[in-house]
Amino acid sequence: MSKGLPKRSDDYSAWYNELVKRADLAENSAVRGCMVIKPYGFSIWEKMQRTLDDMFKETGHVNAYFPLFIPKSYLSKEADHVEGFAKECAVVTHYRLKNAEDGSGVVVDPEAKLEEELIVRPTSETVIWNTYKNWIQSYRDLPILCNQWANVVRWEMRTRLFLRTAEFLWQEGHTAHATKQEAIDETKLILDIYADFAEKTLGVPVIKGVKTEQERFAGAVDTYCIEALMQDGKALQAGTSHFLGQNFAKAFDVKFADKEGKLEMVWGTSWGVSTRLMGALIMAHSDDQGLVLPPQLAPIQVVIVPIFRKDEEFEKISAEADRIVKELKAKGISVKYDNRTTHKPGFKFAEWELKGVPVRIGIGPKDLEKGTVEVARRDTLTKEFVQAEGVETYVENLLAEIQENIYNKAKTYRDEHITKVDTWDEFKDVLKNKGGFISAHWDGTNETEDKIKDLTKATIRCIPLDAEDEDGVCVLTGKPSKRRVLFAKAY
Amino acid sequence: MSKGLPKRSDDYSAWYNELVKRADLAENSAVRGCMVIKPYGFSIWEKMQRTLDDMFKETGHVNAYFPLFIPKSYLSKEADHVEGFAKECAVVTHYRLKNAEDGSGVVVDPEAKLEEELIVRPTSETVIWNTYKNWIQSYRDLPILCNQWANVVRWEMRTRLFLRTAEFLWQEGHTAHATKQEAIDETKLILDIYADFAEKTLGVPVIKGVKTEQERFAGAVDTYCIEALMQDGKALQAGTSHFLGQNFAKAFDVKFADKEGKLEMVWGTSWGVSTRLMGALIMAHSDDQGLVLPPQLAPIQVVIVPIFRKDEEFEKISAEADRIVKELKAKGISVKYDNRTTHKPGFKFAEWELKGVPVRIGIGPKDLEKGTVEVARRDTLTKEFVQAEGVETYVENLLAEIQENIYNKAKTYRDEHITKVDTWDEFKDVLKNKGGFISAHWDGTNETEDKIKDLTKATIRCIPLDAEDEDGVCVLTGKPSKRRVLFAKAY
Ligand SMILES: [Zn+2]
Ligand SMILES: [Zn+2]
Repeated sequence: MSKGLPKRSDDYSAWYNELVKRADLAENSAVRGCMVIKPYGFSIWEKMQRTLDDMFKETGHVNAYFPLFIPKSYLSKEADHVEGFAKECAVVTHYRLKNAEDGSGVVVDPEAKLEEELIVRPTSETVIWNTYKNWIQSYRDLPILCNQWANVVRWEMRTRLFLRTAEFLWQEGHTAHATKQEAIDETKLILDIYADFAEKTLGVPVIKGVKTEQERFAGAVDTYCIEALMQDGKALQAGTSHFLGQNFAKAFDVKFADKEGKLEMVWGTSWGVSTRLMGALIMAHSDDQGLVLPPQLAPIQVVIVPIFRKDEEFEKISAEADRIVKELKAKGISVKYDNRTTHKPGFKFAEWELKGVPVRIGIGPKDLEKGTVEVARRDTLTKEFVQAEGVETYVENLLAEIQENIYNKAKTYRDEHITKVDTWDEFKDVLKNKGGFISAHWDGTNETEDKIKDLTKATIRCIPLDAEDEDGVCVLTGKPSKRRVLFAKAY
Repeated sequence: MSKGLPKRSDDYSAWYNELVKRADLAENSAVRGCMVIKPYGFSIWEKMQRTLDDMFKETGHVNAYFPLFIPKSYLSKEADHVEGFAKECAVVTHYRLKNAEDGSGVVVDPEAKLEEELIVRPTSETVIWNTYKNWIQSYRDLPILCNQWANVVRWEMRTRLFLRTAEFLWQEGHTAHATKQEAIDETKLILDIYADFAEKTLGVPVIKGVKTEQERFAGAVDTYCIEALMQDGKALQAGTSHFLGQNFAKAFDVKFADKEGKLEMVWGTSWGVSTRLMGALIMAHSDDQGLVLPPQLAPIQVVIVPIFRKDEEFEKISAEADRIVKELKAKGISVKYDNRTTHKPGFKFAEWELKGVPVRIGIGPKDLEKGTVEVARRDTLTKEFVQAEGVETYVENLLAEIQENIYNKAKTYRDEHITKVDTWDEFKDVLKNKGGFISAHWDGTNETEDKIKDLTKATIRCIPLDAEDEDGVCVLTGKPSKRRVLFAKAY
């Protein structure tokens, strides 16, 4: 098969777009901005879902489901929220079609106009807090720790598969608490879950931090985030966890009676990750040969390819392959024996490389004689001959090693691309010639943040949680600053 | 706790509505016709999803995700389909809101009108076959066996929680095949999966059959279905599997090159079950005390309630409860120790009965002395003293017995409510005084089917797959008939 993938160094953006399509992850649909997630891509997303869902449940969260539609007036109830989310959205105005009089098809029935327009949810704080109002009377009803897996719609003008689409899939957690501290603890607990998931499952190192006022979620008091770095030196926000204070409780009048019977406003959080993580996964690890998948997310962890000329060779190899398949499955490893006779080994090698299968086992007639198999790693593209007997244990260990290596490689790259910068010239130079995160002092004003963005397209990705107190001066204005923040160009 | 549940015999409909709310399964949202599925209800749905999803995957199906929106013109491409689905639906006409000039909130921006309206999917055949067109070139690309878990919207005027809602959750499978026979086999394979799932997991006996032309899915050649019977004698369609012939392939011009290179139209199927199954589950088994859940779907299979007066009793009982919790968990049984000190045992008993927990274990001071526990079954409301040592094995067996008993009870009721009827007077009498399925001859015409519906509200639920050839005369018209069909009033 001809991969026809552009090289990352030639055109990173074209490489990404082509890879997403050629590896059968997703494609654009006929509806502008909406994607089709293809089975191979969806099976990776399912693994992400399952892992995260387990982590949420282990920490006491439950799933629920809230309506797709939000009455228009709800969006206006929280002042910042409406500014952030009411702008570009899908608006349902009618509830019926009828046959066109000229027989040309169907038209909107003007008599079926909704009294109040419905917005397809861009995020569900409003409809959920309106529901929580009825669920919460006393402190005994708290905390509420709900999550939902859902589709949301934000009308984006410029879209890219997984990274920015009009419709996307995500989980959104919405919790309600009796105290401020408990809500803040929840916000941070989820941030830790997201970071663990990104690093241990996706193999993507992340920096935990807080957003600046301007980058904050519309309606939040504080937005915590995890920021990842892609191979082209651009940052990607991989998850956010918002401390909402009492903003939505106030907007929807959600109060509870405390132990003394006094009415108090409820404290809230919300948090989410989306199919955007698919974009992060792809861009963090993949190479010019195609996808590189961490074993924990690979739909197929091992592929076995027979190499033969004669039918009797094929039969003997197949018997050995079947034996290895059984051994691997017994260890919980997902394995595919690619016994297609319509394609040559070289074609198959290229195809499974493109699809990011972590381990490939080749078996030829010589291997049968010697009692060996050839084991190829996708992450390093290296090969080794291994004793066929016991190969399942070798592969089991190798998968763990690959998972770790993928993370370490991404971490080394990321760490090398956090540059401390103290002058404006240096700032521009690093941004232009090196990329990555720039750790610099900032005077804390919206004006300076905006000006830097206008001048360079770099934004403040976050104020890292582990940022040390350090006296310095703003890289642009020279005004005093107490700690460094992270700048980068971002997806 | 006061359950305040109406009795089934007094008002079955009110009983259902109240039960759904009081057992924390679902509630109406502020958006007309859209429900909130509450955590307890959603956890039952999750178990259904997991079981079905495993069954689909075991038979070679994969999950994918297709867009929420369907261009209006797509609906018109299949003539029957548009008649069935383009009528009551949510229509997106605009993609932006703006601040109202009078500061009263947000209004639809008239400048952001879509060129072509988008329909929120009522079902996805059109958008999926439009996608399959690009996925299918040759016989090597077939079959395609995709499923998606999604939300869909049908604008219903009269809604009931789970049974008929504007938005509901479902799975929709869409498959494409090279031959007619393969597509028919797929349709029937799925019907069998649905029937197995209904009977073994939900504990609901079902009749497999084919719909009449008038009850067929809009766009299908044949609609197969499973029909269940509720405790009030009304039928409920629990799942449908459609043989689409080449209808959608023709509408979207989906052809493939066969082995000889000749272009052929593709054959299709589609099939789905929805959150409606939650309604079937509730209505098939529950009683005046509340939910009765089959153990396989119960979020909590066993609850342990301590019965004590003094703190030291509570401590000792808790130690014993903790031991039993561990033993049960080791067997994969989900168990909750209800150690709330704010509620009395009687309140807890009523609450867990309402929520349908299959097995309740009570432990009091006397039990500790005697080395026993009291085990209560939710399905029969009977109690028994059991040796505490080894109770986990007793409970494990009991759960299997309850699962079976729930099914058998429903089956006995269902079998007693299939009545062979040969005269019109009998037909009316059975329908009015007994309910259930009526097995009767029908002359095969739409007119008679309509007339019976007008006269009695009974519809033909299906032509059972196992219907025997039998010469007879139509129960209404006296015209000749070759086999009996099943009539019933239905949800
Ligand atoms: Zn950050
Ligand atoms: Zn039927």
